[in-house]
Amino acid sequence: MENPGLAHKATNITAVEHIVSPGVRYQRNGHTGAVVWFTGLSASGKSTLAMRLERQLFNKGYQVYVLDGDNVRHGLNSDLGFNPEDRAENIRRIGEVAALFANAGLIVITAFISPYRADRQRARDAAGSAFHEVFIRAGTDTCEARDPKGLYRKARAGLIPEFTGISAPYEVPESPECIIDTAVNDIEACDRLLLDYVESSVALGDTAELTASVR
Amino acid sequence: MENPGLAHKATNITAVEHIVSPGVRYQRNGHTGAVVWFTGLSASGKSTLAMRLERQLFNKGYQVYVLDGDNVRHGLNSDLGFNPEDRAENIRRIGEVAALFANAGLIVITAFISPYRADRQRARDAAGSAFHEVFIRAGTDTCEARDPKGLYRKARAGLIPEFTGISAPYEVPESPECIIDTAVNDIEACDRLLLDYVESSVALGDTAELTASVR
Repeated sequence: MENPGLAHKATNITAVEHIVSPGVRYQRNGHTGAVVWFTGLSASGKSTLAMRLERQLFNKGYQVYVLDGDNVRHGLNSDLGFNPEDRAENIRRIGEVAALFANAGLIVITAFISPYRADRQRARDAAGSAFHEVFIRAGTDTCEARDPKGLYRKARAGLIPEFTGISAPYEVPESPECIIDTAVNDIEACDRLLLDYVESSVALGDTAELTASVR
Repeated sequence: MENPGLAHKATNITAVEHIVSPGVRYQRNGHTGAVVWFTGLSASGKSTLAMRLERQLFNKGYQVYVLDGDNVRHGLNSDLGFNPEDRAENIRRIGEVAALFANAGLIVITAFISPYRADRQRARDAAGSAFHEVFIRAGTDTCEARDPKGLYRKARAGLIPEFTGISAPYEVPESPECIIDTAVNDIEACDRLLLDYVESSVALGDTAELTASVR
């Protein structure tokens, strides 16, 4: 038995430690869990690059998942609005959930503006050494010129209050683990830079090939 | 390219669909994602059996993770207390996070008393057909006789208000997908019943062996 101290009568069931440790997950998956935390302005390219990085990593055999507005705002954080407290709580929960995914052995990529340093620091604290801050860099001018959803236009018209980069601050990362400049690089170059960063930063297993067999 | 409609200049980056679908995760992992939702009284055996089921499934090659008080109450739900509203919110968030894990292709086992039908129904709604309610059954008498943490004793002494089974109700599942009676079965029998249930309920891939190679 894995846990010789565990009583074998149901009448003695007590709480036990997690038996499947991060170490054995690492051995199984061939890589450690990680939080790859994208931050940047609206229209900087976070969601697009997150999805493409997910696909690249998945195709290479990594266990990977993206947390973004689509799957978080309508579910876990559906009770939150856009006032300052709710925005902070939104990022806090995402940081905690990302840490759980990393603990489960996955590489989780998060794609949220997350404009405040304090909020990002809290996400880093939740995940510890598994945390990687990736600054998806493009200036307000560039992002406003893209404006794929017309949000900047609405913000300029005063229809969206506290819009990051227009009427609310974006606090540039001071020492991100990685910077991807989407104003300079085309999308394939961004893909390559991101893949290179993750592959060089996430610890890989010794074996070149791993077998996960379901019997 | 997977997404021929995607613009190839960074200046045209727009939001894209999740490219790694549940279907391709299923093909990779050899099984679908699932939420295996344990419910039952304190000391019914939920956490112990959840950890042991996680180990059994992991050893057979499944991607599996346990959400329990240890990894949720101190992080994601650290802002919540034990009043009725906070208890409901606690379970709501766990249901949403569990649904995210299932969406990411994992079998996630949750080990929480979750005494109210309405709260469990909400968790089911979040995960859809991936949801499996497992009633870890042991009566109050049995659980109180075990009382590994002395909680029932404290509750009887009035030191813990609204303690499920003593001073707060436990709403028995009306149609759970699985019932595990820990008052009758010893722990190994419970292990076998749970493994059999999951293996017969979670869709498996066609291939007997799957290879996940990290290059």
